[in-house]
Amino acid sequence: MALSEDDLIASCFAPIAGEAGLGLKDDAALLAPRPGETLVLTKDMIVAGVHFFPDDPPDAIARKALRVNLSDLAAKAAEPQGFLLGLALPDGWSEAWLRAFADGLGEDSRRYRCPLIGGDTVRTPGPLTVCVTAIGSAPHMVRRGAVAAGDLLFVSGSIGDAALGLLLRLERLQDRGWIDALDADERAFLAERYLLPRPRLDLRQALRANASAAMDISDGFAGDLAKMLALTGLTAQIALADLPLSRAARRALELEPRLIETICGGGDDYEILCAAAPERSGALAAAAREAGVALALIGRAEPGAGPPQLRQQDGSCLELARASYGHF
Amino acid sequence: MALSEDDLIASCFAPIAGEAGLGLKDDAALLAPRPGETLVLTKDMIVAGVHFFPDDPPDAIARKALRVNLSDLAAKAAEPQGFLLGLALPDGWSEAWLRAFADGLGEDSRRYRCPLIGGDTVRTPGPLTVCVTAIGSAPHMVRRGAVAAGDLLFVSGSIGDAALGLLLRLERLQDRGWIDALDADERAFLAERYLLPRPRLDLRQALRANASAAMDISDGFAGDLAKMLALTGLTAQIALADLPLSRAARRALELEPRLIETICGGGDDYEILCAAAPERSGALAAAAREAGVALALIGRAEPGAGPPQLRQQDGSCLELARASYGHF
Repeated sequence: MALSEDDLIASCFAPIAGEAGLGLKDDAALLAPRPGETLVLTKDMIVAGVHFFPDDPPDAIARKALRVNLSDLAAKAAEPQGFLLGLALPDGWSEAWLRAFADGLGEDSRRYRCPLIGGDTVRTPGPLTVCVTAIGSAPHMVRRGAVAAGDLLFVSGSIGDAALGLLLRLERLQDRGWIDALDADERAFLAERYLLPRPRLDLRQALRANASAAMDISDGFAGDLAKMLALTGLTAQIALADLPLSRAARRALELEPRLIETICGGGDDYEILCAAAPERSGALAAAAREAGVALALIGRAEPGAGPPQLRQQDGSCLELARASYGHF
Repeated sequence: MALSEDDLIASCFAPIAGEAGLGLKDDAALLAPRPGETLVLTKDMIVAGVHFFPDDPPDAIARKALRVNLSDLAAKAAEPQGFLLGLALPDGWSEAWLRAFADGLGEDSRRYRCPLIGGDTVRTPGPLTVCVTAIGSAPHMVRRGAVAAGDLLFVSGSIGDAALGLLLRLERLQDRGWIDALDADERAFLAERYLLPRPRLDLRQALRANASAAMDISDGFAGDLAKMLALTGLTAQIALADLPLSRAARRALELEPRLIETICGGGDDYEILCAAAPERSGALAAAAREAGVALALIGRAEPGAGPPQLRQQDGSCLELARASYGHF
């Protein structure tokens, strides 16, 4: 513990700070939306042993803390402007650990053009806790509770990879069969998807111009879809065959059909779930293609109460024991 | 643990949410500065067992988490616009505890006109951790690193009460003498000053119109003053007799002269330290009086390196073992 709090800020964090952070030498940061725009603010907190493994690489922990927030900005079609970092360090941290953490954070802050503008570093007798507040700017925010009946529903990227990656890390006896049957590349892909979310910021323009509603899928596809549709009293029929799955997830599911539960109800996807009026859907799909982000049509919003029905190939309805991750 | 995360948000936090929080039903909040102004953002994190006692009343913990952030906004002469709440709840929380926490937060959010606009609630295997990001609006931000040589230095309210209040709570044997000699009112006053900071938001206009620089004193008067002056290569001579002390702190100091260390170097004051050019100082003092906040002249910024000298009545210089609180 050679570093004091001020040293630590000056040597690790000031180098990745943006102009709005005033060199991290003031009580606060300054930020204005771009002309004609408004600021979009989001805050996600991650805790060692809950959201990540304490022995995950420090740079990956830092990236995840930032990226889960950037995923929210992506869903709102907002352009990152900066972030504040709340960091509670447990006893026994080392300078090397902290530098690796700051390096990962700095790289991602450059990659996503989202500079550090302020924050607070404290000691905790508990686990490492990282609380990021990310701020974006947008002409308007794509809302979550604005799906209309008849809107088509889309999902970016692929679903379930991160939840399968978590099972890989947990190394439970009952999962040994399918895990051992995957090849090394497939295992590495799923593990990486758990470790490092990919915020779909490239979808920003497509969503802003075409989506009627959007949210990021963080707690589980089925539960998050139900949540979004319920806000406007809608439901949906989803054919599970239409869910976008990675090659690795598809292989795992062939090996162990019960993993459909994990794929639909597990968390940490950080993909975008969005809705568009039928007449905007072609433009949305084209804009996503142009942005290089896969966007799969999964169904249509319909009037009706209750969670969406997830149809299996035999026509029966999948009943999930748990539709999404809940902390309590 | 009858409440799910969604129930908990809907029943405890949605009622205290402001319009910008969209009923806490979206991924993010929306905020724009007032016309012609810019947003000022600050984040402070507090951890049970570090910044407060785990058995402090839940409403007081909530208030402290918000108020330490509002104190930063006050120092920057910004008007609160809203806050995001990051809450990591330890095992064993009860609904009653959480409702009391939310009630305290709601009362303070109304008192200071600073609505809840978003956040994140998670589980932690560690201690209760609260990470607030507060956002204010101001035509310009009063900076910390802008003291000029010759500026007069001022401190609001009184210094050292909270650090003495912490000693009261710690009940260490060596403090029994002076603590037992205080009367009940004095003890209650000091304890309250530790438990509940008073953000000096009423000083906003006075600072904005007249101060050249300001910061809030959170880590200890001597260290924070040194930090502020060092940013522009200045120092100061402070006569300890000029420090504004409460009646209770003055009594404690008479009983135990060594407490001057605690008063000057202890944290949690949440008072405003500010500087003003001599020709603005009369107006600053008058505006503070009008706002009903005591503001004491404590010295003058001078060219020179090194921390400010703290002169005792016999003319000797007080050497502090610790000029301010540091986490590491």
